Amino acid sequence: MPSKPRHLISMLELSNDELHSLVSRTLHFKAQFKSGKPAPESVSKALAGQTVSLVFNKRSTRTRISSEGAAVYFGGHPMFLGRDDIQLGVNESMYDTARVISSMTSCIFARVGPHSDIQELCQHSSVPIINSLCDTYHPLQAITDIASIKEAFGKTQGLKVAWIGDANNVINDLAIAGLRSGIDVAVCTPKGIKLDAHIVSGAAEVSKQTGAVLTLHHDPLEAVKNADILVTDTWVSMGQEEEAKQKLKQFSGFQISQKMATDGGANPGWKFMHCLPRHQEEVHDNVFYDESRSIVFAEAENRLYAAMAAIEGFVVNKGDLLK
Amino acid sequence: MPSKPRHLISMLELSNDELHSLVSRTLHFKAQFKSGKPAPESVSKALAGQTVSLVFNKRSTRTRISSEGAAVYFGGHPMFLGRDDIQLGVNESMYDTARVISSMTSCIFARVGPHSDIQELCQHSSVPIINSLCDTYHPLQAITDIASIKEAFGKTQGLKVAWIGDANNVINDLAIAGLRSGIDVAVCTPKGIKLDAHIVSGAAEVSKQTGAVLTLHHDPLEAVKNADILVTDTWVSMGQEEEAKQKLKQFSGFQISQKMATDGGANPGWKFMHCLPRHQEEVHDNVFYDESRSIVFAEAENRLYAAMAAIEGFVVNKGDLLK
Amino acid sequence: MPSKPRHLISMLELSNDELHSLVSRTLHFKAQFKSGKPAPESVSKALAGQTVSLVFNKRSTRTRISSEGAAVYFGGHPMFLGRDDIQLGVNESMYDTARVISSMTSCIFARVGPHSDIQELCQHSSVPIINSLCDTYHPLQAITDIASIKEAFGKTQGLKVAWIGDANNVINDLAIAGLRSGIDVAVCTPKGIKLDAHIVSGAAEVSKQTGAVLTLHHDPLEAVKNADILVTDTWVSMGQEEEAKQKLKQFSGFQISQKMATDGGANPGWKFMHCLPRHQEEVHDNVFYDESRSIVFAEAENRLYAAMAAIEGFVVNKGDLLK
Repeated sequence: MPSKPRHLISMLELSNDELHSLVSRTLHFKAQFKSGKPAPESVSKALAGQTVSLVFNKRSTRTRISSEGAAVYFGGHPMFLGRDDIQLGVNESMYDTARVISSMTSCIFARVGPHSDIQELCQHSSVPIINSLCDTYHPLQAITDIASIKEAFGKTQGLKVAWIGDANNVINDLAIAGLRSGIDVAVCTPKGIKLDAHIVSGAAEVSKQTGAVLTLHHDPLEAVKNADILVTDTWVSMGQEEEAKQKLKQFSGFQISQKMATDGGANPGWKFMHCLPRHQEEVHDNVFYDESRSIVFAEAENRLYAAMAAIEGFVVNKGDLLK
Repeated sequence: MPSKPRHLISMLELSNDELHSLVSRTLHFKAQFKSGKPAPESVSKALAGQTVSLVFNKRSTRTRISSEGAAVYFGGHPMFLGRDDIQLGVNESMYDTARVISSMTSCIFARVGPHSDIQELCQHSSVPIINSLCDTYHPLQAITDIASIKEAFGKTQGLKVAWIGDANNVINDLAIAGLRSGIDVAVCTPKGIKLDAHIVSGAAEVSKQTGAVLTLHHDPLEAVKNADILVTDTWVSMGQEEEAKQKLKQFSGFQISQKMATDGGANPGWKFMHCLPRHQEEVHDNVFYDESRSIVFAEAENRLYAAMAAIEGFVVNKGDLLK
Repeated sequence: MPSKPRHLISMLELSNDELHSLVSRTLHFKAQFKSGKPAPESVSKALAGQTVSLVFNKRSTRTRISSEGAAVYFGGHPMFLGRDDIQLGVNESMYDTARVISSMTSCIFARVGPHSDIQELCQHSSVPIINSLCDTYHPLQAITDIASIKEAFGKTQGLKVAWIGDANNVINDLAIAGLRSGIDVAVCTPKGIKLDAHIVSGAAEVSKQTGAVLTLHHDPLEAVKNADILVTDTWVSMGQEEEAKQKLKQFSGFQISQKMATDGGANPGWKFMHCLPRHQEEVHDNVFYDESRSIVFAEAENRLYAAMAAIEGFVVNKGDLLK
């Protein structure tokens, strides 16, 4: 096997400058794509004649559409391999699967369950793995979210994000990405739910570099104080629907609303983000569908451009993100 | 959102000239494709770097293959999203789904159940929706059928189509398309089954413009009198197999055959059409597999070129069908 | 319909020279693909604007990935139609299906159950059928395996392959392909399992031309004597898991290992091949993962290039394999 490729695993493995570059490229690709002009050949033919594998152990429509669209923009052919096509580690060892698939494709967007699946793929693949959601991280969403914030506010430095929700893969990466971008991050979870310890310690490292701080809360009103962006996500993940009732009780009082923002003292121009799909209990309709507050649809669209930035950085430029 | 796109919903929203143009372009694309020469770059690169979404709530192989093939001909990447990938309005509201998908793709071929799904998609999508079969309409089949008739007879004006079958989405659009093309349409259904009232009234409007007439029958021999084209379709739609026995009884005497054509007095050069898949009860083998009568395989192939005409008209030319 | 296309059905229909050419082109495409340089336009645009259908009645990840990758390399769009998309001969007759699909696509990679399905498709399709695995043959694997042998040994003439396993589709085609390439083939199956009679008689024909011989065995130690390549495959095919226990008993002593090779007197530089996915009982880890013996991952990767050679020979060059 040739030299090991660089993979997109989580926000922890990036430098601040590398994240900054991925965010800039995300917005660059948005402008280029929406101009209606053809992409330069260095982009449109970058993956000509090559496939981009999507190995998805779980359904993930948004992730799939954005990854396929990005592969197409670089001239590659996305090859979607879902649960029914391939089951990682079930019919064949992860080692064999990673060796074989990676020998025939330019890169692998992997959407798996346990993070250890991503780690095994990364260990054995001869081509870049783009972590497209695992139980612990969601790096493409984090790049998207910082780009969406930069787009909405014209900057990231000095802002404050308040996360009102579960301690999950989305906030794990968003917290680190926020701090790397100079954004204070307030994470509010119900009592009994704690942010992963390795994220808290990773955040402390980043804080030393950028000065931005992570704070932990159980009271939403406290968390949203002076916040510029209120964010949440589903409380009940796919396949956990049976736990739904208990969760709803546990998250009582966590629905983001105009009242919560006003009572807690969010900054007047606050925006709302959500990585979708959304359930009603997480956010009031008067926020979700308020086009002056909610940037959720721009955020969803930006997933496409973040995937382009990831392909450029990890596949075309072979992991040299500052090129 | 930018200005509303124009969608392909049914034959009712087209002018006679617009349908005429779609039919001409269908036959134009057939000639171009079968020449074996590469398409001009204005076609082959029209959707370069872009995806074409196929949102299919129901299985529909023919529709899928023709739509994917057409997208490819225009340089786009078809992205098939089946029932297992996405369930319209189930995990996520139709509004959210339409906003998100349309933000990342050049157009959406939608194959749904209730027509209201098409309407909702059209209302919220920022890109053209191509109705690829709903419970009420099947516009791509109607364009295909008129093109197939024109191909077989060298004209449409003054011909007569006899539909011997159910009152369904296929005849709804074929009736209107036929009248718009100067073709008399005789619709023969079993007693107790009636063509939709809004089709009957839409037909009356078109008749005033073109002079072609719609007649309604319950006796196949009466309907096929002087007909140039005999058409039918499945009597038992997908997912209704349990009703099959009753239907077979109800449609007794409706099998299209040489004898029916002769006894009823169809024109000597009559042709047979069927949008497939076909079941034996609908048409006798001696008609279905008689290559001098049956144009079903040319008709199936023409679906590909009708989808090309739809992409050209609604996506590339942004709904200006007379361009 | 135009003149009948030539199909890739099995190794029996090829001449020795034609197989030799397919093998050479396989290795040519490998060098070209891995050079990192763009393919010449005669390749990269050969199927521009066209689809390549994959009609797969059974799951087959490796076959799918390699076929899709090859189609993409020739500029075509692979359209995967799995069990849930299309069921050959179930909803629609094989005749109708073959006529319709072939009218809209450039070729069909078909992965079916009974060989009669391949035969029916070939009879009615207007475009080349590439047999991508049926119950009786696996021609793309055989081309791959001869290419992998040539790659590992720099020649094929005068070598000996020992197959220690079931009498199945893989050895059927590998036996004929080996003999056509001047390779002696020893087939060792458990007592009670016999190589198909038509393969034995086909092999006798080829032996007359090339001098290479087929021998049949029930004792692995006897079969591996002087062998250069030891090959096996799964003993328990997909969907036959219930027979697994009995099979394991029947194949007792058939696990390929260093000890078997040494005790039987295989040539010192012997290599191991397996078409994957592998189960532990078939081959010892100390062989399977020994990179100096096992060429299984190169063999898997070579599937991609064999599919390219098949597209070139049967689709682009219309069956003229010596062009």
